[in-house]
Amino acid sequence: MEKYIVIFTFVGAIAALLFAALTAAKVLKFPEGTDKMKKISASIKKGAKAYLKRQYTVVAVFFAVMFVILCVMAATGSLTWFVPFAFLTGGVFSALSGFIGMTIATSSNARTANACIEGLNKGLRVAFGAGSVMGFTVVGLGLLDISIWYTLLRYVFKLDAGAITSAMLTFGMGASSMALFARVGGGTFTKAADVGADLVGKVEAGIPEDDPRNPAVIADNVGDNVGDVAGMGADLYESYVGSIISACALGVAAFNGFNAMALPMIMAAIGILCSLIGTFFVRTKENASQKQLLGSLSRGTNFAAIAIAVISLPLVNICLAGKINDFSKVGYYFAILAGLLAGVLIGRATEYYTSDSYKPTRKLAGKSETGSATIIIGGLGLGMLSTALPIVIVAACILVAYFAPNGFKISSANINDGLYGIALAAVGMLSTLGITLATDAYGPVADNAGGIAEMAGLDEKVRTRTDALDSLGNTTAATGKGFAIGSAALTALALMASYINKVEEIAAKAGKEVETVFNLMNPKVLIGLFIGACLPFVFAALTMESVGKAAQSVVKEVRRQFKEIKGIMEGETDPDYATCVDLCTKASLREMVLPTIIAVVVPIVVGLILGYQSVVGLLAGATASGFLIAIFMSNSGGAWDNAKKYIEAGNFGGKGSDNHKAAVVGDTVGDPFKDTSGPAINILIKLLSMVSIVFAAIVVNFSLL
Amino acid sequence: MEKYIVIFTFVGAIAALLFAALTAAKVLKFPEGTDKMKKISASIKKGAKAYLKRQYTVVAVFFAVMFVILCVMAATGSLTWFVPFAFLTGGVFSALSGFIGMTIATSSNARTANACIEGLNKGLRVAFGAGSVMGFTVVGLGLLDISIWYTLLRYVFKLDAGAITSAMLTFGMGASSMALFARVGGGTFTKAADVGADLVGKVEAGIPEDDPRNPAVIADNVGDNVGDVAGMGADLYESYVGSIISACALGVAAFNGFNAMALPMIMAAIGILCSLIGTFFVRTKENASQKQLLGSLSRGTNFAAIAIAVISLPLVNICLAGKINDFSKVGYYFAILAGLLAGVLIGRATEYYTSDSYKPTRKLAGKSETGSATIIIGGLGLGMLSTALPIVIVAACILVAYFAPNGFKISSANINDGLYGIALAAVGMLSTLGITLATDAYGPVADNAGGIAEMAGLDEKVRTRTDALDSLGNTTAATGKGFAIGSAALTALALMASYINKVEEIAAKAGKEVETVFNLMNPKVLIGLFIGACLPFVFAALTMESVGKAAQSVVKEVRRQFKEIKGIMEGETDPDYATCVDLCTKASLREMVLPTIIAVVVPIVVGLILGYQSVVGLLAGATASGFLIAIFMSNSGGAWDNAKKYIEAGNFGGKGSDNHKAAVVGDTVGDPFKDTSGPAINILIKLLSMVSIVFAAIVVNFSLL
Repeated sequence: MEKYIVIFTFVGAIAALLFAALTAAKVLKFPEGTDKMKKISASIKKGAKAYLKRQYTVVAVFFAVMFVILCVMAATGSLTWFVPFAFLTGGVFSALSGFIGMTIATSSNARTANACIEGLNKGLRVAFGAGSVMGFTVVGLGLLDISIWYTLLRYVFKLDAGAITSAMLTFGMGASSMALFARVGGGTFTKAADVGADLVGKVEAGIPEDDPRNPAVIADNVGDNVGDVAGMGADLYESYVGSIISACALGVAAFNGFNAMALPMIMAAIGILCSLIGTFFVRTKENASQKQLLGSLSRGTNFAAIAIAVISLPLVNICLAGKINDFSKVGYYFAILAGLLAGVLIGRATEYYTSDSYKPTRKLAGKSETGSATIIIGGLGLGMLSTALPIVIVAACILVAYFAPNGFKISSANINDGLYGIALAAVGMLSTLGITLATDAYGPVADNAGGIAEMAGLDEKVRTRTDALDSLGNTTAATGKGFAIGSAALTALALMASYINKVEEIAAKAGKEVETVFNLMNPKVLIGLFIGACLPFVFAALTMESVGKAAQSVVKEVRRQFKEIKGIMEGETDPDYATCVDLCTKASLREMVLPTIIAVVVPIVVGLILGYQSVVGLLAGATASGFLIAIFMSNSGGAWDNAKKYIEAGNFGGKGSDNHKAAVVGDTVGDPFKDTSGPAINILIKLLSMVSIVFAAIVVNFSLL
Repeated sequence: MEKYIVIFTFVGAIAALLFAALTAAKVLKFPEGTDKMKKISASIKKGAKAYLKRQYTVVAVFFAVMFVILCVMAATGSLTWFVPFAFLTGGVFSALSGFIGMTIATSSNARTANACIEGLNKGLRVAFGAGSVMGFTVVGLGLLDISIWYTLLRYVFKLDAGAITSAMLTFGMGASSMALFARVGGGTFTKAADVGADLVGKVEAGIPEDDPRNPAVIADNVGDNVGDVAGMGADLYESYVGSIISACALGVAAFNGFNAMALPMIMAAIGILCSLIGTFFVRTKENASQKQLLGSLSRGTNFAAIAIAVISLPLVNICLAGKINDFSKVGYYFAILAGLLAGVLIGRATEYYTSDSYKPTRKLAGKSETGSATIIIGGLGLGMLSTALPIVIVAACILVAYFAPNGFKISSANINDGLYGIALAAVGMLSTLGITLATDAYGPVADNAGGIAEMAGLDEKVRTRTDALDSLGNTTAATGKGFAIGSAALTALALMASYINKVEEIAAKAGKEVETVFNLMNPKVLIGLFIGACLPFVFAALTMESVGKAAQSVVKEVRRQFKEIKGIMEGETDPDYATCVDLCTKASLREMVLPTIIAVVVPIVVGLILGYQSVVGLLAGATASGFLIAIFMSNSGGAWDNAKKYIEAGNFGGKGSDNHKAAVVGDTVGDPFKDTSGPAINILIKLLSMVSIVFAAIVVNFSLL
């Protein structure tokens, strides 16, 4: 089996990239519309590119410093020489994923708006096409990176399985660092611009959303691209790659051979093919209702999920042939199914709590009747309460994924077998990322298209169509978040296990004794747990604070322009869009550094002072509390957003009423919740593990206690 | 040594109760002022008593059901027959603490207002006297309960040390259940009334706080008493007793004798005496500044803390004589000091983040300039960020308390010795509760006095004086919260250890094998951890939701009265205060049941399905995330409250400005944060452990996995 790994993964990766390229070509054939639309789109693209360029410059400094540190460690024998380079490629590919996604998105927004002039179906095809480019670029690049390194390490340097996974885990760290920068930076940009534009434009000046008179309107649209597109691309690249390599690493730990490594890699490749076919199911008839639109997208993702579910059974059988008995093979198959199912269920739970088709968000909208304080309390409560279902789902998934491969022999379960099961569940969850990401990433494109339609003064019905696409995007984004959060928790657990394996390996080499049981009654473990649980809180605080600070500077600038530049409100003079873009860029770049540094430094410092036992506690604490806070913040934010939309749709007084104003406050609080802090925490919990793994040697050899 | 235990503890308990009685007599000698003041005070008292009576009726049903269940368990041999009765006494004494505190508080509010006519110093004496009655009643009853049971079990039933602590832990469960009811019920009442009174009275009708024309004004004042006084009394009774009995239990586990049990009990008794002397240091000169007032209170608490710190050294030496070497004895002394210091430091950190004398709250107030959304985001960020320092403090305290008794021999540390150290740290932290609670509990009395001054139309300067006292109360309350939260975390850890001991004991009796290592890589432990970490989120959500619901009903009622009862706004007709009180009572009683049932049922259900390994994970997860959420919510709430006050003091536009309105939204959101959800979570994390201990036999014998 093993010899086919590379063939399969290269085929999968190249198929994905080819498909992305073809789709991109198809999308770019659509016309961009009027000159005005072209001009607007061009300035959005320009702003987004300028931002990314400067972001990469800042990130490059970080990567350079880390590269030097890793080289020093390699020179002193704490790491192999592959590590510094693997770290770099992870970062570069992650950045590339974001960059390509952003390029296609900014090239498709005007095209989507223009296509919507002709009809909803055409608009959907352009926007979904752009989403597909992004989705398949992410998975294609992810699998390509894995394939290249695998080929290199296995056939050129002829390393054994353990050494290969060990090196591969380090490009995960590169990808995670880059993803965190992209999410925090992009998330701060987009929300600062959004909050700034809304607070002064909508609330103070009373002009509609996306009105060209608003000086922050271009920054707002740029933000959608650098945050929701480029940030998400880098983020999901990291999730995808992370789940596969952690499964490879645990496969090796469980079976010590290449076949167990093959399974997650080949599953990813086949998942790409299933997703690819799934995209052809996405189309809708003209004048489709919201439900039909959703049905059309669901057909695609459902096909992909069912296909991979079916194919996984023979796949497990072949990959693990001879290694284990049939009963355990079925067990691993169950683990994969559990992961797939858990992803879907968490997505459903997210939808239930955040969509205005269901009771919780509708009730939340009703709380606007007693003012902004009650809708805030209600939203916070809703978000906190919404953590319960996902926790139960993940708990059940862990239980099945861990014990099924052990034939449900609870008392005599083998730890490595069980952990491999958990890692496979994460791979199962993300195997169809190509298409789920496509349905997710098309949202911001539709959002931008709506903005362009508004600014270019297109017909009302165009905006209605882009709004229909956009609003659908919110629902698919909820499902996407379910997968992202669920897989983050499972991957983090798998990485925790990899860390422990790494510690054992290093200690064995150094002739040191290690305690491989991490007893909760050991104060070192407990303290680690406390500190780890605290990290997501601190991280959420810092990122929210960043958005607040950046937004305040935008607010001041917009107010200044309204006051100082004559004729803006009359539509006679164009506002100075570029300054707002520049302001957001500067603020978000300044703010993204500290959180990332904390994520890198804290596990090392805790390890150096308290030892590896505390690090494991830290990782467990951060995973548990991070999972909860990420869900809490995403769902609170989503519910506030949709509660506002529900009111805007004419309920509880409709647009402009006091209730609406209260709901806008909720939505504004929710912005950094759902688009900055929440998603960034998903990355954080994995980055912590990756950093711990890469720096394990230092901790094992030099820790104080 | 052992024979002196009972003498000492009875002396301590009776001294506290005697002092409380004498102080009460002294306070009650002060005149209540004008007829109007008497009338107002009487209606507050009436409302509060009516509430407590109905609360106890509801709680009685719960206790009856639990009593029957425990009796059945005793009859089937899963428990001893002491347990059901111990459970009852814990509940009764906890309720009694709340009741007595509430009685003296409602009898002192008018007296404080009246004393403030003559001067600040006199006002302080009355209010602080009332606080002292409460403080010493709580510690007196706590130690009395412990002493009685100890005498009974040791000398009448002649049980051994292990069986004694085992029975004593169960009255902890009674106390915790009662405390949770009192905190959640009282907290919901007070905040529903507060929010309702503010939203309609202050914001909509534009009348000042505590204006007699506001129909919810009496309910608001009743709320202060049933929530901040009765709720806090029951809560701290539980904390105090919990810390002592968990230390006793771990002392027995570490040394298997009575002397190690003696230490925490005698420390508590001596702590009472130190606190008692400390109260005599509290007095201030007329026209004292805020700083001098605080200095006067600090003198008292500082004296008590230093005295107990000094006396603890010989105490440890005597109690543990012969048991261990001198080096370890010094280690236990360090553990106690670490606890005392950690309590003070967490208090300081709380003050830093929530007092408007420091930068964070002032900056938060400044965020009101861009509206309510930014002050909400800012406050949430502040609260989350403020978890970092306390976590580091508690981590350091755990480290010292655990390893010092082991002579800092990290690798060969004895678990039981270390855990006893942690438990002693909690006892150290709470040993001077008598006086710290006095400085804390006087706040609501001063608050009520201000309300009465306002409603009775007393001179402006009286209100200024009560405000000075009240505002000081906010600072001392911050310190008090530090002790409550810090000790809750340490006590919860100690109880977790007791649970494990209990499981071992039961398994040994049943001839079952148990795994006494709780490995984080065991999926059962991990799942428990996830579920446990989720509980405080759910709990916070439910309690916030309760306040929201109850507040909405008050809002509607107040609006109705303004509309339907003619002449209220002109001051010609009295509003119908009683209906508002009744509404709050009904709503809060209805809402307090579900959270408590969840706290009792979840650990049992998780244990029955997943086994005791998951329960330990659950307790650890709940403690870590509960500690964090409690601090987050308390500090966010405190900071919003003080940011509003800072603006009211004339900064950022002062009262009535748009900034002030934004700050009021923050304060309203903060109300359930700091006075309902936050403090209730402290109790939750201990109740979970107590329930687990009491029902351990069922879990060990009947769990599914």
